[in-house]
Amino acid sequence: MKDFTDILQEKIDNLNKPKGSLGRLESLALQIGLIQQSLTPQLNHPCHILFGADHGIEREGVSVSPREVTWQQMANFGRGGGGVNMFCRQHGFKLRVVDVGVDHDFTPADHPNIINRKIAYGTQNFLHSPAMSEEEYERAMEIGAEMVDECHKEGCNVICFGEMGIGNTSPSSIWMHLLADIPLDLCVGAGSGLNSAGQNRKLDILTQAVNNYLSKHSDISPLRYFGGFEMIAAMGGMLRAAEHRMIILVDGFIMTACMLGASKLKSEILPYAVFGHCGDESGHRLMLNAMNAQPLLSLGLRLGEGTGAICAYPILQSAVNMINEMDNFDHAQITKYF
Amino acid sequence: MKDFTDILQEKIDNLNKPKGSLGRLESLALQIGLIQQSLTPQLNHPCHILFGADHGIEREGVSVSPREVTWQQMANFGRGGGGVNMFCRQHGFKLRVVDVGVDHDFTPADHPNIINRKIAYGTQNFLHSPAMSEEEYERAMEIGAEMVDECHKEGCNVICFGEMGIGNTSPSSIWMHLLADIPLDLCVGAGSGLNSAGQNRKLDILTQAVNNYLSKHSDISPLRYFGGFEMIAAMGGMLRAAEHRMIILVDGFIMTACMLGASKLKSEILPYAVFGHCGDESGHRLMLNAMNAQPLLSLGLRLGEGTGAICAYPILQSAVNMINEMDNFDHAQITKYF
Repeated sequence: MKDFTDILQEKIDNLNKPKGSLGRLESLALQIGLIQQSLTPQLNHPCHILFGADHGIEREGVSVSPREVTWQQMANFGRGGGGVNMFCRQHGFKLRVVDVGVDHDFTPADHPNIINRKIAYGTQNFLHSPAMSEEEYERAMEIGAEMVDECHKEGCNVICFGEMGIGNTSPSSIWMHLLADIPLDLCVGAGSGLNSAGQNRKLDILTQAVNNYLSKHSDISPLRYFGGFEMIAAMGGMLRAAEHRMIILVDGFIMTACMLGASKLKSEILPYAVFGHCGDESGHRLMLNAMNAQPLLSLGLRLGEGTGAICAYPILQSAVNMINEMDNFDHAQITKYF
Repeated sequence: MKDFTDILQEKIDNLNKPKGSLGRLESLALQIGLIQQSLTPQLNHPCHILFGADHGIEREGVSVSPREVTWQQMANFGRGGGGVNMFCRQHGFKLRVVDVGVDHDFTPADHPNIINRKIAYGTQNFLHSPAMSEEEYERAMEIGAEMVDECHKEGCNVICFGEMGIGNTSPSSIWMHLLADIPLDLCVGAGSGLNSAGQNRKLDILTQAVNNYLSKHSDISPLRYFGGFEMIAAMGGMLRAAEHRMIILVDGFIMTACMLGASKLKSEILPYAVFGHCGDESGHRLMLNAMNAQPLLSLGLRLGEGTGAICAYPILQSAVNMINEMDNFDHAQITKYF
């Protein structure tokens, strides 16, 4: 008896084109069809959830941008003026901007579009102690899941996550190092614009932090020890999205680290992940390779916010259009060609 | 005094994002702004022109697909059932399907959507003689220009070209070899599905054809000697599009060869070219490098028809949205960050 994968692949192979000639669109159509267990998959009500939070490690000067940029940009997203807003409008994504730990009070009157789920005013500095407590970690996971449940209830079956948090390439690099067993120096890059001296300093600090963790705190999960609230919330959201059989469109370096983290908690999540973009941040490609991920775009974006993933959305639409709209050879009465 | 390029670059640099963080979108916005000489560039009425024609060289068995597929697929495009139709619908392209040399009569009653500009029932076999006469070459160039004029009159400022012509990777490989001075064996690939024996045979035949040309006919332009009617029409269209200061969105291997040909006739065309897709056809990357082209996508598409370019269109839209819709630092009152 044929299994569903074979039936779906046959449908794709019998579309009116040389077999395999639509390349990545064909493998994407197969993946989406399998996620939805459907020969006629659909993309419904795409949603983007952007979590924002601050990081204790930022106090060590690991980022070229100051902490205040986190809240300023969150306010900007709330007003619709960020990169992410623009691409959400372009591709019809509903955007949720969620404060899970920004070091600033957003008053509802001034910031009606920022959803308040603040856990704390930023994490602790993981150079000296765990970034968050067990309760905070659980709370962040729950918030992520809760937000995804809301999207799912609205009819969403394709979801994307983004982040705003000055300093968050640092925990992402450490996750990559510890979870994918890649040497730390290959995991540490320029963030949003460090020069080489700054990168060396960042590597020194992260090396110290990792050594301290391994010698004294390795009973604690590195996800909790180093993570940001926005990263744990995204991870919780990804895990819940897979439970709902939603397509998870994964953004750049930080969100790839979150998917890596989620996959270590539950390896069954990976078939739900579509990797949108391979950025320039050093090591992103290595981390993608560790998950056998084939990103759709490689446009040198390093803005974060989820922008790389959202820009890849039309390619998912093309894959779905292909499987639903393209004629097959029998119907088109064309000599099957190669 | 600042020139316009500096003013445009300053606008892009002062958008609310770390400088350069939107990568390829920023260079694309600069290019589009320069083409239109505008700080607020627009994409209007995108058009796609698909030229179809048959090739004498197909008689030598250089393609795994039979000649009849050309007309069958043209009929299919006319009915709206091809890959190209689907992507044109997705991205709002107006499609023109133009017969410039298909070896088949399309009756207007049965094929109302195929524009008849037939020059001949296919080219001559360039293994033995020039593919077309000087008059035919001029006619094909004119048809391409005429079609672009029609699009321009409708308000189009971004245009894409596609092709259908069984056998047309062969002339494209030879153009690449002769025009970009790349060894022929690096220019010859699998076309739409040759195995390695088939590829060797194709290379043998093309080597013979080139040797014959160089020894006896090198006074004739290789564009005319080897080209297909659909390729010359596309080239003529590209040249006219640049005269109208339109953005030319360039598809895969065949259309890249046409842009290479056009650039040899008029090097000023290249700033108007946006390369949409780098396909798998052997040598495509080398040919792109010869024009310092940075393709937007690399999705392993090898269907032709213009599909790779059309799938890249949302990235142009993103670049234009960025420069027009994104807030700048002054207005957003955000600490300029990096």
